[in-house]
Amino acid sequence: MNNLLNSINETLLMGPGPSSVSPQVYSSIGKSTIGHLDPKFIEIMDAIKIQLQTLMGTNNELTIPISGTGSAGMETCFVNLIEKNENVLILNNGVFGARMIDVCERLGANVDSINQKWGEPIILDMIQKKIDDKKYDLIAIVHAETSTGVLNPMDEIAKLINTTDALFVVDAVTSLAGLPIHMDAWGIDALYSGTQKCLSCPPGLSPVSFSERAIHKLMNRKNKVPNWYLDLSMIANYWSGKKRAYHHTAPINMVYALYQALYDIIQEGVDNVFEKHQNMHEYLLIKLNELNLELLVEKQYRLPMLNAIKIPEGVSDIDVRSCLLKDYNIEIGGGLGDLAGQVWRVGLMGYTAKKENVDRLFSALSSIL
Amino acid sequence: MNNLLNSINETLLMGPGPSSVSPQVYSSIGKSTIGHLDPKFIEIMDAIKIQLQTLMGTNNELTIPISGTGSAGMETCFVNLIEKNENVLILNNGVFGARMIDVCERLGANVDSINQKWGEPIILDMIQKKIDDKKYDLIAIVHAETSTGVLNPMDEIAKLINTTDALFVVDAVTSLAGLPIHMDAWGIDALYSGTQKCLSCPPGLSPVSFSERAIHKLMNRKNKVPNWYLDLSMIANYWSGKKRAYHHTAPINMVYALYQALYDIIQEGVDNVFEKHQNMHEYLLIKLNELNLELLVEKQYRLPMLNAIKIPEGVSDIDVRSCLLKDYNIEIGGGLGDLAGQVWRVGLMGYTAKKENVDRLFSALSSIL
Repeated sequence: MNNLLNSINETLLMGPGPSSVSPQVYSSIGKSTIGHLDPKFIEIMDAIKIQLQTLMGTNNELTIPISGTGSAGMETCFVNLIEKNENVLILNNGVFGARMIDVCERLGANVDSINQKWGEPIILDMIQKKIDDKKYDLIAIVHAETSTGVLNPMDEIAKLINTTDALFVVDAVTSLAGLPIHMDAWGIDALYSGTQKCLSCPPGLSPVSFSERAIHKLMNRKNKVPNWYLDLSMIANYWSGKKRAYHHTAPINMVYALYQALYDIIQEGVDNVFEKHQNMHEYLLIKLNELNLELLVEKQYRLPMLNAIKIPEGVSDIDVRSCLLKDYNIEIGGGLGDLAGQVWRVGLMGYTAKKENVDRLFSALSSIL
Repeated sequence: MNNLLNSINETLLMGPGPSSVSPQVYSSIGKSTIGHLDPKFIEIMDAIKIQLQTLMGTNNELTIPISGTGSAGMETCFVNLIEKNENVLILNNGVFGARMIDVCERLGANVDSINQKWGEPIILDMIQKKIDDKKYDLIAIVHAETSTGVLNPMDEIAKLINTTDALFVVDAVTSLAGLPIHMDAWGIDALYSGTQKCLSCPPGLSPVSFSERAIHKLMNRKNKVPNWYLDLSMIANYWSGKKRAYHHTAPINMVYALYQALYDIIQEGVDNVFEKHQNMHEYLLIKLNELNLELLVEKQYRLPMLNAIKIPEGVSDIDVRSCLLKDYNIEIGGGLGDLAGQVWRVGLMGYTAKKENVDRLFSALSSIL
């Protein structure tokens, strides 16, 4: 019987995630599985908390990887913090903002949203109007919109949201380890990320952090969290409780990979890693210019690690991407929703963010175009 | 900085899961990550559907691994199939039956339960009484109770439940690939499992299958599934839809590992694998006898792959288990809930189920006791 895994070759992952993975991380994920209550595993869990705190800019005790992908992190933040009929405001300017609306509505929240044009950042005035009008229990935003390449200006937005009593939830799936995050300084109450973006770890875990205020809300709910698997009050007992009470079996080997990815980032130096992402973005701009290609997003709101490139008129989105994948072993992303067929999304995340990879992509692109 | 992964040694995993993993599966999990929409990955997804169908005894189209551990599979079955105020009956004789009750109550169901003594199977008369009394929308049972080592007699129970109109949900976390499962013949509507038991794959995925009747219920819900991450109507579009619509980023490398684990089981021959589990259980009985140790469960209801051994009087549960782990690199499990301190749980699952492993455990145990 033919084993399909034999035909898996290394692909240069330059899409919106997963990003390419380093040899050290591949070797870590294949280490011997041990028990989820083994003292050695508990040491790794404790170390990951500290590693994540460093990247998130927080001292939150409740800082752990959820056993699911980034969207499980989104679900975790909302299902633990929202009760039925509470007022929620979503600052939406892309697929992941729209997903937040869907998640919160399913939980029975009264959801208002600001729906900014895709490719543009959330504007302070839009938020001011909403918070002047109504008292919100929770306000949420995507830091780095993977669907459009937009960076929402967190310094100003955080300041404004902190004038309210609302819990502040931030999607940092694409920003974590690619841009500075100041969870505590920004007054963020719940933050979630994913492993397959700038952490350059295979997909499968979602780092999440809850502030004291978020935990207080969780512990004083009127009703139990309507999701057993993602109930953080129980998961916290396993990840950071004194008794390490069994909740569910942690994805041991994925946790190894996350530990190694975080270890390597911290060894490289967090600031160096941010600088690398910025430098690679600027190098990409030079190469785009050579091919007369343009970015969708205005300069000051561009993400370094995710670049939405306008597809030139007359060029077939799918033909180019298929050719890149088949003939050059390079994956880039297409547009989602309204941007389908309009943009390519090129990720320069973590291990992918290397000059030689940008060169390889543009050498291929210039042959194809 | 010290890298904690350097101190991970191979441990013989003879607890209730995770079980030991084969070299082929370790090597698969470390293969190059590719995109979650890469045609090669989609081929693997399609192959896994067929592999799982084989082990589950079903032709269900909707047969996929959920991106979370076994408990996420439990959550998936209930959150997709239950609406508020529906009548649910849980046949509970252990930790995982009790967990079902908790999950269903959080979803707003009216939950009745049969609460059998731990260590004993569910009795047909108990079910008959309940279904004579009330019409249930859903009835659920654990096939192989990992917390006690009890095998619930599925042939008879299925026959009885099929006399009702209730959807029939089965937890096959510990039984899948260790015991024959006849999902279609038993009239099961939703079944879930985990990767870290008899599949001998690291924890992190939960194979799930839904019947046509379950899909019909899902597609005709009054309200949206109150859980975006686990909404099977959307996940099915990615895993088996014609368009392969992106839902969340699949845990690529975990999926490789699952594919390989299933591949190896099917190569070995499913019936041979069942026989191996039964033979190892019988070999364990001989060794137990030599040490005057006894099983908790009556002969005809014993699981082959999970053995609850009564701890002899005067012996310290924790001392023995710590010594096994520290001095012999062998992990066995303790008892949960009422059985804490009363039993050890010895797993003979998948790659762990080998004569040499049983010998290694009993050589260590006879030195310690």
